[in-house]
Amino acid sequence: MRISRRSAVDSFIVMDVMERARQAEVQGRDVIHMEVGQPATPAPARAREALATAMSAGALGYTVALGLPALRERIAQLYHDWYGVEVSPDRIVVTSGSSAGFLLSFLSLFDAGEAVGIADPGYPSYRNILKALDLVPARIEGTLANRFQPTVSDLALGLAGLLAASPANPTGSMLDRAHLTALIDGCAARGIAFISDEIYHGIQYGKRPVTALEVSDDVFVINSFSKYFSMTGWRVGWMVVPDTHVRTVERLAQNLFICPPHASQIAALAALDADEELEANCAVYARNREVLMNALPGMGFDDIAPPDGAFYIYANIARWGIDARTFTARMLDEIGVAATPGLDFDPERGDATVRFSYAGATPAMEEAVRRLKDWLPTL
Amino acid sequence: MRISRRSAVDSFIVMDVMERARQAEVQGRDVIHMEVGQPATPAPARAREALATAMSAGALGYTVALGLPALRERIAQLYHDWYGVEVSPDRIVVTSGSSAGFLLSFLSLFDAGEAVGIADPGYPSYRNILKALDLVPARIEGTLANRFQPTVSDLALGLAGLLAASPANPTGSMLDRAHLTALIDGCAARGIAFISDEIYHGIQYGKRPVTALEVSDDVFVINSFSKYFSMTGWRVGWMVVPDTHVRTVERLAQNLFICPPHASQIAALAALDADEELEANCAVYARNREVLMNALPGMGFDDIAPPDGAFYIYANIARWGIDARTFTARMLDEIGVAATPGLDFDPERGDATVRFSYAGATPAMEEAVRRLKDWLPTL
Repeated sequence: MRISRRSAVDSFIVMDVMERARQAEVQGRDVIHMEVGQPATPAPARAREALATAMSAGALGYTVALGLPALRERIAQLYHDWYGVEVSPDRIVVTSGSSAGFLLSFLSLFDAGEAVGIADPGYPSYRNILKALDLVPARIEGTLANRFQPTVSDLALGLAGLLAASPANPTGSMLDRAHLTALIDGCAARGIAFISDEIYHGIQYGKRPVTALEVSDDVFVINSFSKYFSMTGWRVGWMVVPDTHVRTVERLAQNLFICPPHASQIAALAALDADEELEANCAVYARNREVLMNALPGMGFDDIAPPDGAFYIYANIARWGIDARTFTARMLDEIGVAATPGLDFDPERGDATVRFSYAGATPAMEEAVRRLKDWLPTL
Repeated sequence: MRISRRSAVDSFIVMDVMERARQAEVQGRDVIHMEVGQPATPAPARAREALATAMSAGALGYTVALGLPALRERIAQLYHDWYGVEVSPDRIVVTSGSSAGFLLSFLSLFDAGEAVGIADPGYPSYRNILKALDLVPARIEGTLANRFQPTVSDLALGLAGLLAASPANPTGSMLDRAHLTALIDGCAARGIAFISDEIYHGIQYGKRPVTALEVSDDVFVINSFSKYFSMTGWRVGWMVVPDTHVRTVERLAQNLFICPPHASQIAALAALDADEELEANCAVYARNREVLMNALPGMGFDDIAPPDGAFYIYANIARWGIDARTFTARMLDEIGVAATPGLDFDPERGDATVRFSYAGATPAMEEAVRRLKDWLPTL
């Protein structure tokens, strides 16, 4: 049977690592998982309790396409509490994870053939979703000097859109207010739609990240309950869109998704009040980050952008003269440490980089450091 | 900010009816809901119990993109049990509802500008998803004589694909084996991809529906836990794709969805063993159907295709000389019966038709009949 051209997108290389790690565990190996981009913790207890209660009370049928009104209102409150900005609940769109947020943003903003700027290294699905929707990912080569973030000088490209992430995956680097403002203003002046990926907000290690909504209302913001709220598998997130785009996004969401998972929406609403548990998760990430940042640079992992947020460290491994796929395969086979080769994030330069995720437990991070210390000199 | 052309899809007219019905209820009206296409029943008890257990046992993080292996295997078993066909679990793709199944099918099969045949009346999101993905919905005008289903003579149109539903929404009509075989063979001979929407399988009132997999392995089948399994809001369904397309669909699913909701997958796995509860639901639909089919044709509702399955009756109301939006608005305002005007399903002829959903409780259906009997003569 026929296969479309636009479906020829890349698979995730990390999936190969995960499968290999699973096989190693089946064989009794003790694997430290630093390849997966998700918290090891479950959804907050009160989120699970809220769902258990709701499941015995009602049918959990379709919700309206934009999401439960109470959840949209509570998310608006988050913008007040976290950033001091007032956002109307009418502009908040609950989505089936940030994945649906990207689909809805791209489809509502861009027509086939248009170009959207994304920085490399970056989340691999950006370019793959763009390709599948007949859009053109316009690669912006990130540099360590710019913390691997796009800059205003990257905007002179005939772009229809720019997608920026802060904190970013895989680097953890953030856009400060001046940098973010320059990007948003630069886009506005050139008629470029600005999409802000803020799914790691809440997980930061110094300054709090700035939301694009502090700078402008004329932006698309994408967020998620997956990371700070520790609900990856629940597939629930949200967008904030300009007033002018609510109806367009609503119509697309009705047709493409009907609604986000009802059960996940109920759990998410309760998760928004689980600060104590969630901050305890973040305290673990902070300790993990310290363990790794105290060790990795000295071991020879190079060009690490300051991981201001999220739970990743992205490093250059060129000094060992081994390509990243071989490096990560050997690291898994020889010392049971799983990490992601950089090619997922940067198809051009990623064969010299790896991403370590430190969303696991602190003792596991300490053990990974011990194993690396013994192993690296053998390369 | 810019808005794309392809996002100019239709909204669901039924949403207006639902909102109006909600307002009427707020004002204390007793509304009989025959507008919504979903069971009034919750997910099966054992599905909810399985999730409650899983929530206290583990983290419910991402699953692999194609879905939990145990769920894929259990769905393969369903094809053996229901139809006597053997399907490899490798070909089964768990999806975020049939909505995701349509997205993944269309993107993996068709490139921008290609035409996909769909019968009118039909599920409105078919044409709207196609449009949003830069595909061309090729309208096939259904006739009562053909039970509003496409026929082989409709295939000579330069189509890239044909999408057929059995039982269909809004008519409930089914394709028998000969008709389905003719369509699949006709498509194969012309290089047209055949997509079979089987989301109402399990809800039937005489013969069991035929799955396209009984006819050919070279088809896309889309199914869902929403209807027979009574799990609309959970957003979980599945596809069966040819061996040749598994990797393509997997790559798209990784990037576009990451995975279907983990909690919903666990509930779905248990729902597959909830026959007793689900058959009891179907017995209610069967009684409701009898109540309505004994009454509506005699009241003047015309051109009803035999509702072989699903829980809908689609009827012509031209004899009353009132357009469908006015008819349904007055029916709601004057006697508190909510139904869907046909324009959602057939933009060209739907102003003379309405869809009644009978997924509610039997006493409500009986009461609707009483109210209609008194009301229709007043028109």
